[in-house]
Amino acid sequence: MSGERMHAEMAEQPEVLRRLTSRRDEVAELVRRTLPEPLRGIVLVARGSSDNAAMHGRYLLETTAQVPVALAAPSLQTRYGVRPRLEGFLAVGVSQSGATPEIVSTLQELRAGGAATIAITNVAGSPLARDADAALLLEAGEELAVPATKTFTAQAAAFVLLAEALAVRPLTLDWARAIDAVEDVLATPEAIGPLAERFATADRVLPVGRGWLYGAALEVGLKLAETTGLPVHGTSPADLQHGPIAAIHPGTQVLCLVAPGPVAADLAATASALRARGAAIAVVAEDDTLVPDADVVVPVMAGVPEMLALLPQVVRGQQLAARTAVLRGIDPDAPFALSKVTRTT
Amino acid sequence: MSGERMHAEMAEQPEVLRRLTSRRDEVAELVRRTLPEPLRGIVLVARGSSDNAAMHGRYLLETTAQVPVALAAPSLQTRYGVRPRLEGFLAVGVSQSGATPEIVSTLQELRAGGAATIAITNVAGSPLARDADAALLLEAGEELAVPATKTFTAQAAAFVLLAEALAVRPLTLDWARAIDAVEDVLATPEAIGPLAERFATADRVLPVGRGWLYGAALEVGLKLAETTGLPVHGTSPADLQHGPIAAIHPGTQVLCLVAPGPVAADLAATASALRARGAAIAVVAEDDTLVPDADVVVPVMAGVPEMLALLPQVVRGQQLAARTAVLRGIDPDAPFALSKVTRTT
Repeated sequence: MSGERMHAEMAEQPEVLRRLTSRRDEVAELVRRTLPEPLRGIVLVARGSSDNAAMHGRYLLETTAQVPVALAAPSLQTRYGVRPRLEGFLAVGVSQSGATPEIVSTLQELRAGGAATIAITNVAGSPLARDADAALLLEAGEELAVPATKTFTAQAAAFVLLAEALAVRPLTLDWARAIDAVEDVLATPEAIGPLAERFATADRVLPVGRGWLYGAALEVGLKLAETTGLPVHGTSPADLQHGPIAAIHPGTQVLCLVAPGPVAADLAATASALRARGAAIAVVAEDDTLVPDADVVVPVMAGVPEMLALLPQVVRGQQLAARTAVLRGIDPDAPFALSKVTRTT
Repeated sequence: MSGERMHAEMAEQPEVLRRLTSRRDEVAELVRRTLPEPLRGIVLVARGSSDNAAMHGRYLLETTAQVPVALAAPSLQTRYGVRPRLEGFLAVGVSQSGATPEIVSTLQELRAGGAATIAITNVAGSPLARDADAALLLEAGEELAVPATKTFTAQAAAFVLLAEALAVRPLTLDWARAIDAVEDVLATPEAIGPLAERFATADRVLPVGRGWLYGAALEVGLKLAETTGLPVHGTSPADLQHGPIAAIHPGTQVLCLVAPGPVAADLAATASALRARGAAIAVVAEDDTLVPDADVVVPVMAGVPEMLALLPQVVRGQQLAARTAVLRGIDPDAPFALSKVTRTT
């Protein structure tokens, strides 16, 4: 009931991230070997938590590689037999197990259409790793808790490594600082205590993030949905204003994920608008100046590059999800009879 | 309080669709004039209801044009200054008003990156129409109710016209049948009565659709969120299984959108799984055989091509949203102090 597995796997994240980022040269070599010339675009194939990591990749790869990035619609390949022309494209398939049939088949179809393919997976020798032109193995160790934690942050980090390797303008990110920030989050779980108490009795929780923290908002939303059974969906300030803001009523618990950068002001403005509708505003941030309207600030270390801010932010979300579940009488390791590997086709 | 404006605008849909589809030759000519040769990919730029129409376009354009299709992430262009290389790409911007600043700026940036651009909008001379290489005007007449109805179905139809014009293999869709089906839906509003009674007291409503009805599920979800204030999000059977199914509890009102075709079996299987978790299952479908586990069937006419099934299905959703709002004491014409034109940047 206490989420021991989930916590043990969360605790491994700094080590997993250090190991993965020590292989930057390997990733650069893998990209060199695989990349079409010229690169015209990128397609990402994933579901669930992996899809949230892919969303982070979608933002970062378009930024650094300066080509358009699409998220695949797998049913087009697996159900409708659509095979787009993909000469000059890179397709990246992401699956923790490497065994979700629709991810494997979709990547095969995109490869048949002419795309160079890379698999991001935790399981060497899995169908996804076997079929792709190259595999980037996460080496995160087996994951047993149903909510993905260390494999999610490893997938997201793998996408950032790809973004570095594909960068048109060379990019050197301060990974050490980001991993220190993850370690700091893990060392201070009590920081999410008061917010988890609120979430324990909430009927509406809304994570909000934009740009390089949009994937983080989606992932924190999915984590909270999986572990609490609430219909939580992360969203962006812009999407929210185009209709769903109607659903914000007094008592809604808003969770803003924010880092210093060009979208911070959007989060501050959104927080004001949501507070005016009666929502309670919490923020995960390095200080209390970014979103002045917040009534709770869950701290993360300052000085993390915005492209890596997702890592400590999502780990705060993992802590919140695990603790809120326990307070609601749910076992975060295996909530609601969900299964670990989801075999969608 | 009765949603007179929304109903009046809904009632115009057959006429708007007939007028728009009578301009097929104009759309073909507009595409001929604009299209890069060879076409390498397509990027769609939209928010809100327009984004749901764009999602329908995302599925249909990849199917018929056989190139990858991406949905833009506007903040990359408006906040981070990212300008992807887009030679050989077509970018389509969609905005009812043609005046949402971030849609206008993003399409400008994609054009500066080399994309040929088309605007889909209801307002001739709007910034979006003015800046694009070509404009496909919806000619739907002014829309006053906050929930988009006739402009949504017109936008979705515009995307299907583009999909016909871009088809690698010539495609002749039975538009007359689809518009007759919309007319039939509008003539039988009582068919949604019992379901609206259920939704009037529900705390969870979940529209589900896949493939060529995925955009429809998103739009019905947004319509219900806007008019009821519930946190409703349309989803796909595959996404649902990767986590959010945890949030399904007894009393959840599931609404399956389904048409005969390659994904119908996925909806049937999902309905069974959700029923096993205690959800009530309603289905919008031409008969009661597609989803045997349904306990309510809201009828639509048979014989509509799957690519056009979205049109009558979404109009059923509009009826449900309007009626449910009234039963909940909400004015569907202007719910929750939402504004008609959303000026996100």
